[in-house]
Amino acid sequence: MKYYLGLDVGGTNLATAVVDYDCNIISRASMPAGAGRSIEEITDDMAAVSRMAVDNAGLQMADLVSWGIGMPSCVNAKTNLLVHANCFGWKNVPIYDYLEGKLPLPVKIENDANCAAYGEAVAGAAKGHKNVLMLTLGTGVGGGIILDGRIYAGADNMGAELGHTKLVFEGESCTCGQKGCLEAYASATALIRFYCRETGMDVDDVNAEMIFKAASVEEEAACRVVSDYIDHLAAGISSFITIFRPEVIILGGGVANAGEQLLAPLRKRLEYFTFGASEIGVPPVVKAGLGNDAGLIGAAFLGQR
Amino acid sequence: MKYYLGLDVGGTNLATAVVDYDCNIISRASMPAGAGRSIEEITDDMAAVSRMAVDNAGLQMADLVSWGIGMPSCVNAKTNLLVHANCFGWKNVPIYDYLEGKLPLPVKIENDANCAAYGEAVAGAAKGHKNVLMLTLGTGVGGGIILDGRIYAGADNMGAELGHTKLVFEGESCTCGQKGCLEAYASATALIRFYCRETGMDVDDVNAEMIFKAASVEEEAACRVVSDYIDHLAAGISSFITIFRPEVIILGGGVANAGEQLLAPLRKRLEYFTFGASEIGVPPVVKAGLGNDAGLIGAAFLGQR
Repeated sequence: MKYYLGLDVGGTNLATAVVDYDCNIISRASMPAGAGRSIEEITDDMAAVSRMAVDNAGLQMADLVSWGIGMPSCVNAKTNLLVHANCFGWKNVPIYDYLEGKLPLPVKIENDANCAAYGEAVAGAAKGHKNVLMLTLGTGVGGGIILDGRIYAGADNMGAELGHTKLVFEGESCTCGQKGCLEAYASATALIRFYCRETGMDVDDVNAEMIFKAASVEEEAACRVVSDYIDHLAAGISSFITIFRPEVIILGGGVANAGEQLLAPLRKRLEYFTFGASEIGVPPVVKAGLGNDAGLIGAAFLGQR
Repeated sequence: MKYYLGLDVGGTNLATAVVDYDCNIISRASMPAGAGRSIEEITDDMAAVSRMAVDNAGLQMADLVSWGIGMPSCVNAKTNLLVHANCFGWKNVPIYDYLEGKLPLPVKIENDANCAAYGEAVAGAAKGHKNVLMLTLGTGVGGGIILDGRIYAGADNMGAELGHTKLVFEGESCTCGQKGCLEAYASATALIRFYCRETGMDVDDVNAEMIFKAASVEEEAACRVVSDYIDHLAAGISSFITIFRPEVIILGGGVANAGEQLLAPLRKRLEYFTFGASEIGVPPVVKAGLGNDAGLIGAAFLGQR
């Protein structure tokens, strides 16, 4: 049996797992990320927590094929530098140099949203599909694209930032400094912002779940905001369909927990918004199946299954 | 020496060329497309005009490697049917069956905008680059994407319709029936429409060249319309950069003939509109180099060079 080591690096936690060839997680380990410490210390812990998962599985390093790491950043294929990891305040870090020799395994780093999409394609809601679009609707909008069974991350690994494509010309301000990005309309943060703008509530007192719940009992402002949110999300997804024609679209993140209350009207609006929908149809849209494990499983298989 | 046969099928003309391994066009032939005739007749002529180019080159069919055809449509890879060719009123045509045996060469059909992008990547303004975005700004907006040296046309060949991605949520009506498509803002047709809306002129009395000329002598309406056009084009391109991070962006079609009057301000606006521009920069934007030959050369090399 072959085993694969996956690590999901977030600003709060380092979560790791050993995954077998059949995509089962057979052991886990995690520790606090300890943001604010040196790169050396944090990368040491990335290795340490990963070693713990191998120990927990009762395996030796020799049983493992590879070490895959998902991070909220990307490694520029030309410079081999980790471009930025805002959660740690890192910029242009030679991450592979730091990791070298820490574990006796080939290591590969990918953007965490790409790992999640890959995990869902290999073992989750998109299993069996080779062309997959995944959007994670959370604090921001993360995007992952699987083309012909592989992660597509743009030339030099620097693209596929789907959340920052333009949806509304000169529209709402986005966290990235641009205006009108998909993220500024389709993140949970955006949903909350629009709802609070309508109701005068404080953003700290509201979350996406509450808004969908209010809409389900026909609260007027919530209905309006949710309907508008779904319209914008559908318009954004429609562009990705027009470009990629994925076989399936996966939605993850907090907003996707609304389930059919989100998905049923979204599917209808996709029919309305998508180029050629009446001729070619629209791909199915489903909820992510693996939760946070998607990123772990996707990371584990970065070194090829 | 190896030779390649390319055919560019338009609503008006069937244009064909023999191309050598070094991308030189060594002979040409063309004839009227004769839209309105039967599929059998038109595909017969597609073969006949192609044979003429081979004769004109003083070659035998045995000297040719392959026959590549660019058409204003695409062949669904799943059904193997040509989805639609509006210029001929065709829909879901088993085009490969019609073409079989007409020439003793392997045949491959691609969307004409994709062929143009491929031609520019192989022999034109993007020569030497493996990741290329090309937009043709004409009656519509055609888009072609080259990823890692190959045409990317979406899953089942049904994507990469860049002109029909959303630029303005619920914006201007597009020829495709959707609203707010890039094409509805960045085609020559759109430029003319906006100018006529400002000036009350008739669209039949205006072309893109006239509008850019008027802007160059500071005519107020023309300046406003051109500036707005460039803003929208830049915003549209910025999304493609965010997704693909191409090494170079090629603009073709009538509007691109404005040259630096278009490109210089466009580059500035791309800096403004593109996610991460200050960190990662923005790819160079250049005018297409091969004109109509891009599609012919790209088609010729579809069967792999």
